[in-house]
Amino acid sequence: MQMKKEPLNSTRDKKKIDLEKMQHSTSHLLAAAVLNLYPTTKFGIGPAIENGFYYDFDFENPISENDLVKIEKEMERIKKKNLKFIEKKYEIKKAKEIFKNQPYKLELIDDLEKDPSTSSGRGGEKKVSVYELGDFVDLCKGPHLKNTKEIGEFKLTSLAGAYWRGDEKNPMLTRIYGVVFPTKKELDKHLEMVEEAKKRDHRKLGKELDLFCFSDLVGPGLPMFKPKGVVIIDELRKYVEKVCRDHGFEKVLTPHLAKIDLYELSGHAQKFSDELFRVSSKRGHDLVIRPVLCPHHTQVYASKKRSYRDLPIRYMESEKMYRAEQAGEVGGLNRVYAITVEDGHSFCRVDQVKEEVKNIVNIIKDFYSGLGMWGNHWVSLSVRDYDHPEKYIGDPKDWDKCEKMLEEISKEMKLDAKRCEGEAALYGPKLDFMFRDSLGKEIQIPTVQMDFATPKRFDLVYTDEKGKEVNPVMVHRAILGSYERFLVLLTENFAGNFPLWLSPVQVKVLPINDKLVKYAKEIGGRLEKEDIRVEIDESSESLGKKIHNAELEKIPYMIIVGDKEKSAKKISVRSKKDGDLGSLDVGKFVEKLKKEIEEKK
Amino acid sequence: MQMKKEPLNSTRDKKKIDLEKMQHSTSHLLAAAVLNLYPTTKFGIGPAIENGFYYDFDFENPISENDLVKIEKEMERIKKKNLKFIEKKYEIKKAKEIFKNQPYKLELIDDLEKDPSTSSGRGGEKKVSVYELGDFVDLCKGPHLKNTKEIGEFKLTSLAGAYWRGDEKNPMLTRIYGVVFPTKKELDKHLEMVEEAKKRDHRKLGKELDLFCFSDLVGPGLPMFKPKGVVIIDELRKYVEKVCRDHGFEKVLTPHLAKIDLYELSGHAQKFSDELFRVSSKRGHDLVIRPVLCPHHTQVYASKKRSYRDLPIRYMESEKMYRAEQAGEVGGLNRVYAITVEDGHSFCRVDQVKEEVKNIVNIIKDFYSGLGMWGNHWVSLSVRDYDHPEKYIGDPKDWDKCEKMLEEISKEMKLDAKRCEGEAALYGPKLDFMFRDSLGKEIQIPTVQMDFATPKRFDLVYTDEKGKEVNPVMVHRAILGSYERFLVLLTENFAGNFPLWLSPVQVKVLPINDKLVKYAKEIGGRLEKEDIRVEIDESSESLGKKIHNAELEKIPYMIIVGDKEKSAKKISVRSKKDGDLGSLDVGKFVEKLKKEIEEKK
Repeated sequence: MQMKKEPLNSTRDKKKIDLEKMQHSTSHLLAAAVLNLYPTTKFGIGPAIENGFYYDFDFENPISENDLVKIEKEMERIKKKNLKFIEKKYEIKKAKEIFKNQPYKLELIDDLEKDPSTSSGRGGEKKVSVYELGDFVDLCKGPHLKNTKEIGEFKLTSLAGAYWRGDEKNPMLTRIYGVVFPTKKELDKHLEMVEEAKKRDHRKLGKELDLFCFSDLVGPGLPMFKPKGVVIIDELRKYVEKVCRDHGFEKVLTPHLAKIDLYELSGHAQKFSDELFRVSSKRGHDLVIRPVLCPHHTQVYASKKRSYRDLPIRYMESEKMYRAEQAGEVGGLNRVYAITVEDGHSFCRVDQVKEEVKNIVNIIKDFYSGLGMWGNHWVSLSVRDYDHPEKYIGDPKDWDKCEKMLEEISKEMKLDAKRCEGEAALYGPKLDFMFRDSLGKEIQIPTVQMDFATPKRFDLVYTDEKGKEVNPVMVHRAILGSYERFLVLLTENFAGNFPLWLSPVQVKVLPINDKLVKYAKEIGGRLEKEDIRVEIDESSESLGKKIHNAELEKIPYMIIVGDKEKSAKKISVRSKKDGDLGSLDVGKFVEKLKKEIEEKK
Repeated sequence: MQMKKEPLNSTRDKKKIDLEKMQHSTSHLLAAAVLNLYPTTKFGIGPAIENGFYYDFDFENPISENDLVKIEKEMERIKKKNLKFIEKKYEIKKAKEIFKNQPYKLELIDDLEKDPSTSSGRGGEKKVSVYELGDFVDLCKGPHLKNTKEIGEFKLTSLAGAYWRGDEKNPMLTRIYGVVFPTKKELDKHLEMVEEAKKRDHRKLGKELDLFCFSDLVGPGLPMFKPKGVVIIDELRKYVEKVCRDHGFEKVLTPHLAKIDLYELSGHAQKFSDELFRVSSKRGHDLVIRPVLCPHHTQVYASKKRSYRDLPIRYMESEKMYRAEQAGEVGGLNRVYAITVEDGHSFCRVDQVKEEVKNIVNIIKDFYSGLGMWGNHWVSLSVRDYDHPEKYIGDPKDWDKCEKMLEEISKEMKLDAKRCEGEAALYGPKLDFMFRDSLGKEIQIPTVQMDFATPKRFDLVYTDEKGKEVNPVMVHRAILGSYERFLVLLTENFAGNFPLWLSPVQVKVLPINDKLVKYAKEIGGRLEKEDIRVEIDESSESLGKKIHNAELEKIPYMIIVGDKEKSAKKISVRSKKDGDLGSLDVGKFVEKLKKEIEEKK
């Protein structure tokens, strides 16, 4: 799920550059306001960041979130003065004079002085660039807007502690975050989205919906999936395996350990040197935990003699691999040590590669169509960086052939793939499929990659029509990628309101009093026999409270069981999506559920 | 699947001791024959072993398997002479004189001389025991039969190289293996069983049926399951999960790694100190690979506040754990580093333990009844070793209560469990279920174990009716144990002829010529839609050869497709079990298959 940039687009890029200029200028406006309100403040730095800006201050007396309103008002006041951002160049000595009461700025000037890459002015004396905004003067390279009136609509969003220059040995400064947009509409939309993202955060929902947990004794980066989380993972696995099986893939099951030799041959030992977990024992074992699955699959292929008639041979596996991420970087399900990947590899003849890539594109299409996501994507035809052929392995002729083949496939399958230079894998070009998440962020999940090199490295062969031993071509593919990240995507996308087929509990039966629990269980039992996931609320709470609880648990259907329903042998159904469905026959309701599950809606 | 001894049975034990005496005596008879035929031979040792005996010789000129017949004949000749086994005691000096040309015996005498545990005769001079059989004299403690006429029916079975005293720095001797039984009938039965065991060996069948493989690059002890092996594992998993789900178990999914702290608290770090795989990385990680699953499950329990109303909470998981076995001991699927366990734990209140143990016994009963194995077993009520209370943790009162409870359960459920003292787990008593494999060997698979100690160690609690925090009781259980060993058991038990529901390929369609491949595929497609696992033989082989191949692959049903069948829109079916089933309607055949799959026959 790495980010991938869409091919360059000048209009779009210009917009982005303009926004960054505005963000940076607003951080100066913030600093100017702080100077007016808290004149003794020492100033750190104030860059533009993704979606906004910040400025780091060393306040004489600590401020609180409540003070942000006051600062915003002062910013508005200064903005209305239509002040100019004025750039000036000073020699180091002069600059030090200007910032004599600003120790952090002096430290920066010292660095600039020492830095050989900064240009020197006439006479060998270096000059530094400074921006003035009214009384506020900042050491700054720019660029900035011309005038404060160009600044759009802004808001200060939060306050946090931050060590000067990110080093915990330095003083802790106060960082004020803000956002700015050209129009109020854009600002409001962004703030709404941030609120929504907070609500949808998988860490929050994962806890509320009881999907997964962490333990201090087990350690960070090692999520444990609870029963409700496992239901979702199992449903996804069954679905992806079904689609792949329909397209000729067979399951293998390989261990998480191997000798390092396996990865030295594949090249992953070098590539994942830092991320590799090493395994040892008192009995002298020396192994590694796999950082990828492909080398194991080559060994399953190699376990038997293969004939040209046997190909393509397709293996898939949904299993864990482990990467030693930086301890400080793991968090939630997005960055973990234990990654459950849905991985697969086809081994085929050269004359089969094109059809096999198409076969896999069809799997991707079927899988994402089933999820209602097909169409909301674009395809990258990720080719070499032609200026740096040394970054790739394999024969350039093979590369030419593969890239041409992918072009043809894109045309024949109407993928409208965009060429992205420099985005190929080490061993071959690929098709990457980019989707957007609920908040509009682009994520890459499925991919199809051609690989002529690995089979050669592992000396994989098949016997061709003439009895000669030939290397097959390997096609790597991911359909849903890692289950952990896919669960994040789905949880945040649906804000926890999973479609029926993925809902851990599909129906909750709510008896209106204790006497009806037995009948409620009878109803539950009937649904369970039809493989519907049911829970009975046996608590002694009021019906209102029971309904409220089921809503909090985001359960798609509630069955309310009263004496009337019992005597009429019917059930009263309430749908999360469509509200009250009235009195229904159990059989009819089961039919409705099964159809909805089948359609994955 | 550890071996467990049935409670002592004196008749049985006497028989075993008698057989060992005969085996050992036959090894002397073998040595006597070798001495006659190859007088320059130097003699090693010749003990009784499980199912037979061996003798190690240092031949002047190497012998081959063909020479065994000649040696057997000489043994028969000596046996008929009705020679006595005569015991004599000699002082060390005299013994050295007797064995002056036998360097291996002299080495043994030296050891006996140095060994302080061997008794000394009068005057401080040690004596050693020697047995004479005609001209053959051996350094030997006995006991032996009285006379060669008491030796039953024997056979020399094989020849192998063996280092003197098992040390590769010593000379390589020639080991001759043999078996002996009181009657010809017993000998024949044993030899038949050995032949059968060879045919059924899971390593041989696993390769022939393409179930699993190993790779030098991945390393020993790390099996990789191929598509056909995964089908069996998946079917077993689905079945055991279904039975457990019907009895209230829910799936969790936990990682293979954890901090060592987890196992220090559980006690496994100490218990599995040698078997523990340690994990490190360049980035300073320090973790272990789990040798058991229970500690992770305690952490899933601990992830949320629990009330008395929530119990029992039952978790199950079919996942891998890893143990650093001695490199020399791994082999096949019986001893591996990577063990896929079907594990589960119930957390319940004290007043629920009895019902929960019964619940789990019912799971075991359902699961093994479904496999047709229930009844072919006995149950061990594994209690403490009362002479050594220090070997166990927990309150003796809890132990008394638990043992009494298991007695009651055995009575109420008519398990007829036999008390086996000293067989309890560290933390509590248990019920172990012993089955017999196809060759009559006893194996323990399912188990239910009570555990009052672990919840206390992990400080697991629930809130009781009075709002007080109380430790739950943990019940450990295994249903099928490790998938690897269960696959061994099934493979060897069925000699690869898996029942239909477990067969990787359930039906093979054999078109009688190339023109009928299309129709064969049509038939195959119809079966696949009904979730039947089908393969089409598209080769250009003759029908006879196609049938032969399907038989080698041990496929339960063949569909033979000819022009006649095509025009009649019928299929001709051949069952591995019942032979030719004649011409059938596809629908009828599917019905038959589904019934057989459902019934697991």
